[in-house]
Amino acid sequence: MIVLFTDFGVRDPYIGQVKARLAEHAPGQQVVDLLHEAPDFNPHAGAHLLAAFAPGFPPGSVFLAVVDPGVGTPRSAVVVLARGRWFVGPDNGLLSIVAARHSDTRLWRIHWQPETLSATFHGRDLFAPIAADIARGEFPVAKLTQTDKLDVEFDAGDLARVIYIDHYGNAWTGIRGVPKNARVSAADVSFRHSDSFGFIGKGEGFWFLNSVGLLELAVNRGSAATAFGLTVGDPVRVQRLN
Amino acid sequence: MIVLFTDFGVRDPYIGQVKARLAEHAPGQQVVDLLHEAPDFNPHAGAHLLAAFAPGFPPGSVFLAVVDPGVGTPRSAVVVLARGRWFVGPDNGLLSIVAARHSDTRLWRIHWQPETLSATFHGRDLFAPIAADIARGEFPVAKLTQTDKLDVEFDAGDLARVIYIDHYGNAWTGIRGVPKNARVSAADVSFRHSDSFGFIGKGEGFWFLNSVGLLELAVNRGSAATAFGLTVGDPVRVQRLN
Amino acid sequence: MIVLFTDFGVRDPYIGQVKARLAEHAPGQQVVDLLHEAPDFNPHAGAHLLAAFAPGFPPGSVFLAVVDPGVGTPRSAVVVLARGRWFVGPDNGLLSIVAARHSDTRLWRIHWQPETLSATFHGRDLFAPIAADIARGEFPVAKLTQTDKLDVEFDAGDLARVIYIDHYGNAWTGIRGVPKNARVSAADVSFRHSDSFGFIGKGEGFWFLNSVGLLELAVNRGSAATAFGLTVGDPVRVQRLN
Repeated sequence: MIVLFTDFGVRDPYIGQVKARLAEHAPGQQVVDLLHEAPDFNPHAGAHLLAAFAPGFPPGSVFLAVVDPGVGTPRSAVVVLARGRWFVGPDNGLLSIVAARHSDTRLWRIHWQPETLSATFHGRDLFAPIAADIARGEFPVAKLTQTDKLDVEFDAGDLARVIYIDHYGNAWTGIRGVPKNARVSAADVSFRHSDSFGFIGKGEGFWFLNSVGLLELAVNRGSAATAFGLTVGDPVRVQRLN
Repeated sequence: MIVLFTDFGVRDPYIGQVKARLAEHAPGQQVVDLLHEAPDFNPHAGAHLLAAFAPGFPPGSVFLAVVDPGVGTPRSAVVVLARGRWFVGPDNGLLSIVAARHSDTRLWRIHWQPETLSATFHGRDLFAPIAADIARGEFPVAKLTQTDKLDVEFDAGDLARVIYIDHYGNAWTGIRGVPKNARVSAADVSFRHSDSFGFIGKGEGFWFLNSVGLLELAVNRGSAATAFGLTVGDPVRVQRLN
Repeated sequence: MIVLFTDFGVRDPYIGQVKARLAEHAPGQQVVDLLHEAPDFNPHAGAHLLAAFAPGFPPGSVFLAVVDPGVGTPRSAVVVLARGRWFVGPDNGLLSIVAARHSDTRLWRIHWQPETLSATFHGRDLFAPIAADIARGEFPVAKLTQTDKLDVEFDAGDLARVIYIDHYGNAWTGIRGVPKNARVSAADVSFRHSDSFGFIGKGEGFWFLNSVGLLELAVNRGSAATAFGLTVGDPVRVQRLN
């Protein structure tokens, strides 16, 4: 299974070009669109999202992960193997959290260049063929050089900020494993805990651990983003009680 | 064929997780995205949309239908078989119209619970595995209990309101089978009939029976929603002449 | 491979109905969504986009191309074969540029009508079955009449206007093959050249030849559309120096 995780946008003609390339290089492989609206130009938020989603996909999955504001510059391209899942993308921190959270991680730099490499669309020209090779089970040894360390590494601990806002207006954070009695606040507002939406009054705010294990701020039948003016990057405070 | 009908949003990382689960449980099955922007928190509008689309899909199709503001509360989960098509989703009225419009409908409650069931994402954890079982042709008898009646049932007649607004700004209603000489009005405006867009002056409003048999309000090369201030829930009036 | 190029919108229930039809008529065929947000009601911009994308897809690909404000009127429906790729859609100019740019182009009118033909959704009812026939390798001779000329033909040269704005805010134009030392301006602003985003200061505007060979206006880590007030249709000026 090839899993796409990008900021290419769902409405733009980028994903389709990537998929056509994957279909040529790995015919018959299942391709799943996980996210194409990762926050633009923000590998840091993307890295935390990717690390939260990865364990939910079967071992052997190949993630084509591209949030790449430095495309065309000499930033490196890498392959990461972490806990049985593959990740192909730029070495700009996007893959660094999934890499750091597992002890058996292996890393390779992509030194191969395709005959035709655009300056602005490595997702199609460089990363897709490599991901296709791996998904086909033909690890492209000749195109890679093993390495010990990524060039860019983000802190692999929790990120106490809003990292994604979904279309309901729910605000995801990079915070994991919060006990129900913790005190959670953001935008100068305290949030109570609830297990799910239906237990809360209409229009009321609350926090919950979401389906990939991240603390999420929400409003029942409403938008937390609008109600509290939340945007990606806003700090979120968690006080764990004794 | 598994057909997805949800309010999960096209830009969010929900559909991809559902599809990965379907790929694990029903490998090789065709999955079609019908609608992921059903009006949020609105099973009533969704129920009328779903009932209009269903006959256009081949018998044997399995609809995974989720508009589920009560997720995590004790609302029931059900399987509906109506006119040869399967529907899997919450028992909150969403499946009640498609169930009521056919005389041979059969109903089951899902009593099975997966080992890991998130409180907020039954589409992925509960409904997807059941839909996959049915699509594979292995009806999950042991996970279901036959029943006679849904807990929540909406009126199965027409709904004389706007139930969907598409990206062109066309306003769909829950009204079927309107003769061309009927008088149609909404937002204090009378709409004339036309068979299609090209017969109407640019910027002019009209109504037509759309490609799934519902009365739709439109403006040629413009947005009816913007021109007439229409939103989901607005009443629409139809006077059938003798 | 069937490639979808439409203005049906990514969030609306149109693409799914087309895909269900394709799955019935051409089971197992790969279907790729290239673009579903071609500028609304604008076959001219769409024609230039389609011509730029086509060469990137493998010979034998079948493009289902629908931007069709005249649907339901007597405009013709056509099949185009150009440089080994097939195109199925309305004869309103949308296919005219891809047709004109190759010397070996062949043209057919679709005289076939399906038993059930809606007045507003020929993408599903008429074009999808024809595209499916061709993709299956069963050219539908009996449904077509060869012809010499399209009814509507746009100028096949460059279009010196904005033809698409992506979700980053980058503005695509219909201008090809521009040397790096050309003078480019739009909205009374001069743009400098850069090969890619990472070489430019944050927030700075520039132009580049994009990954399908079109001149594109952009801002590094920002939106050119917002910064310079660009919209589809705006003129763009290129002065080639000696």
